Amino acid sequence: MKFTHETLPQRVVFAAGESPAAAAAEVEALGGSKVMLIASDRERELADPIAKELQVVLRHEEVVMHVPVEVARRARQAAADARADILVSVGGGSTTGLAKAVALTTGLPIVAVPTTYAGSEATNVWGLTEGETKTTGVDDKVLPASVVYDAGLLTTLPGGMTVASGLNAMAHCVDSMWGPRTDPIDRALAQEGIRALATGLPAVADDSTSVEGIEQTLYGAYLAAVAFASAGSGMHHKICHVLGGMFNLPHAQTHAVVLPYVLAFNAPQAPEAEARIAQAFGTVFHTEAASAGLAALRQVLDAPRALRDYGMPEDGIAKALGPITQAIPANNPTPVTEENLTALLKAAWAGDPIN
Amino acid sequence: MKFTHETLPQRVVFAAGESPAAAAAEVEALGGSKVMLIASDRERELADPIAKELQVVLRHEEVVMHVPVEVARRARQAAADARADILVSVGGGSTTGLAKAVALTTGLPIVAVPTTYAGSEATNVWGLTEGETKTTGVDDKVLPASVVYDAGLLTTLPGGMTVASGLNAMAHCVDSMWGPRTDPIDRALAQEGIRALATGLPAVADDSTSVEGIEQTLYGAYLAAVAFASAGSGMHHKICHVLGGMFNLPHAQTHAVVLPYVLAFNAPQAPEAEARIAQAFGTVFHTEAASAGLAALRQVLDAPRALRDYGMPEDGIAKALGPITQAIPANNPTPVTEENLTALLKAAWAGDPIN
Repeated sequence: MKFTHETLPQRVVFAAGESPAAAAAEVEALGGSKVMLIASDRERELADPIAKELQVVLRHEEVVMHVPVEVARRARQAAADARADILVSVGGGSTTGLAKAVALTTGLPIVAVPTTYAGSEATNVWGLTEGETKTTGVDDKVLPASVVYDAGLLTTLPGGMTVASGLNAMAHCVDSMWGPRTDPIDRALAQEGIRALATGLPAVADDSTSVEGIEQTLYGAYLAAVAFASAGSGMHHKICHVLGGMFNLPHAQTHAVVLPYVLAFNAPQAPEAEARIAQAFGTVFHTEAASAGLAALRQVLDAPRALRDYGMPEDGIAKALGPITQAIPANNPTPVTEENLTALLKAAWAGDPIN
Repeated sequence: MKFTHETLPQRVVFAAGESPAAAAAEVEALGGSKVMLIASDRERELADPIAKELQVVLRHEEVVMHVPVEVARRARQAAADARADILVSVGGGSTTGLAKAVALTTGLPIVAVPTTYAGSEATNVWGLTEGETKTTGVDDKVLPASVVYDAGLLTTLPGGMTVASGLNAMAHCVDSMWGPRTDPIDRALAQEGIRALATGLPAVADDSTSVEGIEQTLYGAYLAAVAFASAGSGMHHKICHVLGGMFNLPHAQTHAVVLPYVLAFNAPQAPEAEARIAQAFGTVFHTEAASAGLAALRQVLDAPRALRDYGMPEDGIAKALGPITQAIPANNPTPVTEENLTALLKAAWAGDPIN
């Protein structure tokens, strides 16, 4: 038991249907009085009731995926011109990302009100793009001081999107079990995240307006982000990153397909992870093993099964082998060989049953 | 699911046998260069190797239980005279408590190196006594910035003391399940704490020098403190506080006796707590129910069984009833009546089997 765990400061408020009052209370607790409200025009209806409760000196709607540097620059200038003293973001990952870009240079505190399951609001990671190049970094200044989770803001998200991001969050939890900086606290939080996601996702898949299902999924996605930011990318994310980049595969589907194969690959050599994942799923599905639990969830959700269905060519397996082997952290529970990695990729490509 | 959870910032380092290097690294990371080292003369041998790796401008040995205000005043003056810019405490709850008293007025950061399972190092709660009066408060300034847990510093603690404080930590975990401010994050951390304590305590009871056992117990006691500080005192602590004050009962034994009765009282009305506690113990003892798990641990540890063995008079039950009823939080899972509370106290007084 040798580890260093850094717990970051954050207030998290779960308040279904009450985000306007909750966001106002958080702004007040942080001593903010001149709010820059960041929400894209698509989020306008969700942001309006929140805006009403705040002293908004500026509404900023220019939100662009991956936070291009010019967009960040304009937002920072606008914040300075308006003399904003606090940022409130209402939106998904790109909106939170823009608030982080402003906080990075201005030091302004953020109250994040997420409208998706992206999880960015729970981390100190920022990202900016310049042309094709994405730069990311870690800075405690960009960690939102408060997060307000209001399940009522996610009832209009299509169920399919919830399932896709929920499975992404599930991949964060599972990969946190053996990420390069993993520690028992990360693994305990990830275990709780798996339990919550396994509870919430079937409910949302069944009824995309289920507030209880959305709450559990939000809670699970929050824990997934906290655990993953601390533990770092493990084998699963390295595989998906290489495959996604090489073959331009859709993000969510790639993660959904690959996860059970990585779990089956690592679990036999990672008894603590096996026990934790099994226990988390077992609470919900009464399954015994980790893989059986994930399979039960995937069946309920009718999750994607084969990479070939999403455009990966069969000869891509051989091409991806080298880069993936290079990227997998040295502490991966099951040592990676050309043979066992090839077998994993072949199975994921074809959608073979997991043994 | 309606809650606000505040996560406090702290670095936690587990490094058995390596506290000197780890403490030095934490001091450096915090930018400290003039260390006030707080450690009582009884702790001198444990503190010496740590002192060697630090730039100590002042060693302060006047540590007194419950932190009398005069003791705090002298320590603050000494810190100012020596122009210390960081505090390193090596010791138990009183030592950490004195460091907190200094931090409260000076704002100096603390690196805490615990030598017991007190858990104070993981909270933002401070305490001072003036004569008979204890004042406590909450201030983020007193939360140690870093904690270094070195199991090697606890190998000389008698096994009996470890079991007593370990059961105290267990009571913090269990009571966190229904404390007045409890939330799912507190409960998940408490669940992990129960698992760790149930793993570590039997190992330490068997061999008080077991580094693996001490590590698990330290880890469990840390999580217990984090969860309990957030959730607040529940029924168990209210009962023990009233009984302890009225009849001058020994602290650790009172907690050890009362806990199983409170668990049996609340668990039937607290299904989530029952499931979490059952799961945590089940991982270790293969028990099914929460109470059966705690019973299994208590049997291994030969835990105290009856309040009458520790000096509580039988007619004390009737006397304590009113004050305890007043003190129990309104959100307690099982509503408290004169009848069911009397039955609980009678059973705990006599050491009756738990049904």
